[in-house]
Amino acid sequence: MKIGLIGLGKMGYNLALNLKRNGHDVIGYDVNQAIMESINTDGVETASSLSDLVGKLGANRVIWMMIPSGEFVESALSDLKPLLIKGDIIVEGGNSNYKDSIRRSGEWEPLGVHYLDCGTSGGTEGALNGICAMIGGSKEGFERIESVIKDISQPGAYLHCGPAGSGHYVKMIHNGIEYGMMQAIAEGFEMLQKSDMDLDLAKIAGLWNQGSVVRSWLMELTERALTKEPDLASIKGIMNSSGEGKWTLETALEKQIATPVIALSLIMRYRSLEDDSFAGKIVAALRNEFGGHALVKK
Amino acid sequence: MKIGLIGLGKMGYNLALNLKRNGHDVIGYDVNQAIMESINTDGVETASSLSDLVGKLGANRVIWMMIPSGEFVESALSDLKPLLIKGDIIVEGGNSNYKDSIRRSGEWEPLGVHYLDCGTSGGTEGALNGICAMIGGSKEGFERIESVIKDISQPGAYLHCGPAGSGHYVKMIHNGIEYGMMQAIAEGFEMLQKSDMDLDLAKIAGLWNQGSVVRSWLMELTERALTKEPDLASIKGIMNSSGEGKWTLETALEKQIATPVIALSLIMRYRSLEDDSFAGKIVAALRNEFGGHALVKK
Repeated sequence: MKIGLIGLGKMGYNLALNLKRNGHDVIGYDVNQAIMESINTDGVETASSLSDLVGKLGANRVIWMMIPSGEFVESALSDLKPLLIKGDIIVEGGNSNYKDSIRRSGEWEPLGVHYLDCGTSGGTEGALNGICAMIGGSKEGFERIESVIKDISQPGAYLHCGPAGSGHYVKMIHNGIEYGMMQAIAEGFEMLQKSDMDLDLAKIAGLWNQGSVVRSWLMELTERALTKEPDLASIKGIMNSSGEGKWTLETALEKQIATPVIALSLIMRYRSLEDDSFAGKIVAALRNEFGGHALVKK
Repeated sequence: MKIGLIGLGKMGYNLALNLKRNGHDVIGYDVNQAIMESINTDGVETASSLSDLVGKLGANRVIWMMIPSGEFVESALSDLKPLLIKGDIIVEGGNSNYKDSIRRSGEWEPLGVHYLDCGTSGGTEGALNGICAMIGGSKEGFERIESVIKDISQPGAYLHCGPAGSGHYVKMIHNGIEYGMMQAIAEGFEMLQKSDMDLDLAKIAGLWNQGSVVRSWLMELTERALTKEPDLASIKGIMNSSGEGKWTLETALEKQIATPVIALSLIMRYRSLEDDSFAGKIVAALRNEFGGHALVKK
């Protein structure tokens, strides 16, 4: 099938190669000219603009977007508005908020353009070798591109989850679970590292990947990281986040669902961004005020 | 090798079959006569008492214990005290507290009996088909039985972790991580179940096991449980625990390590044991006292 792929970053670039390897005719587009030149040398055709891209696709176009969520998606969709017509399909494969995807579907579907939200998991390795795809939106639109999604996914690794937004909702929850699993693994390894027993953390992660209850892809990545650098001395423990954990917690609060582990995983990420905290100063000051407890001065 | 196996419960029974399948000469013992008769029909020899068991093992005995931690282990070890001699080996494969294992090793090693603590993961399926074994204690003792441990483990799934207690310490941390991972998965699935999108939870778990970041054995078990009964309507959400999560948290507190996710996972288990809580009554009463907010009466 002929696919217009907008966004050739780490995920999009690999997805283009994945589509091409599976016999699809990809035309890529990115605002970064250097990336377009690079992917040309990998044999992927590119377009000079969004309208050039749309022009090259013929009828019943399929536009796949792999660009950062928020204003970038919004802006690209706004540019596409005058270019697409009834019968076209948009697959939005980024990490968008499911509420945005529901709203956008409501704007496009009345124009006869199927708007599918596709949560994409598996990291950059997955983008290259087979993603795990969670798709929401029109069943008819999904069925038209199902064969493409099947080709670029791991065996059995795609699902039409439900109505508009459900792909990104399921992906959001996937990431919320991921936050909790990562924090649980992290706390455990800190306890191994702080034991008095001189434990080999990489070997323990490797052991746990063979037949233990906690065997998982995240434990395999833990093994890989600790094998490269057993004490992780070269990196700081700053845990950035890209928004999906926050949306998971916001959704839990809206629906009043008790999710303490996902909440704390997110909050520990925020705490990691600061070397010191004002909250810490407040508690230290209060202990000093009521009990004369010593303060650590700056 | 000839192995005396004490404790033929769910784990021990399967381990006996595992040892036998791998060509080892198992003599089993359990306080429950019916279990001993059952395992006889599976071709495993049994002993009529601990002293009978020890007598049947000859020189340089290997005693493997798979019995509940705490007083049961303590009592069996006390009964074994007059029966074992220099050169014998005890492998304690239950979920004991690592501090008990350090103490017990300190009592047995001066007698010339190697005392190995073995954390065993993989559940009852693992016990039958291949465990994941975390072994602490004397390296010399470990090397004498390494070939047996290798036979009954998944490929590559055993490790001499370090000194006495380290096997159970590593297993304790494994279980702490397991608590956190389970709670994260659980919170995510509650959010899927409470969405307005009529999602197929079993299919989503199945999807996530194919190429997603959260793929894991626990997610496979989630898929299995939700496939059997999509709404889990027949079971109550009571989350019992067997002590290892509590020990993990106690150890974190002793060493002042911040482990909020493991802590909350444990605390949510305790909360699940009560339909109502006194803490809830206190908060309800206070809101009523200061703001006249309505109380829900019993």
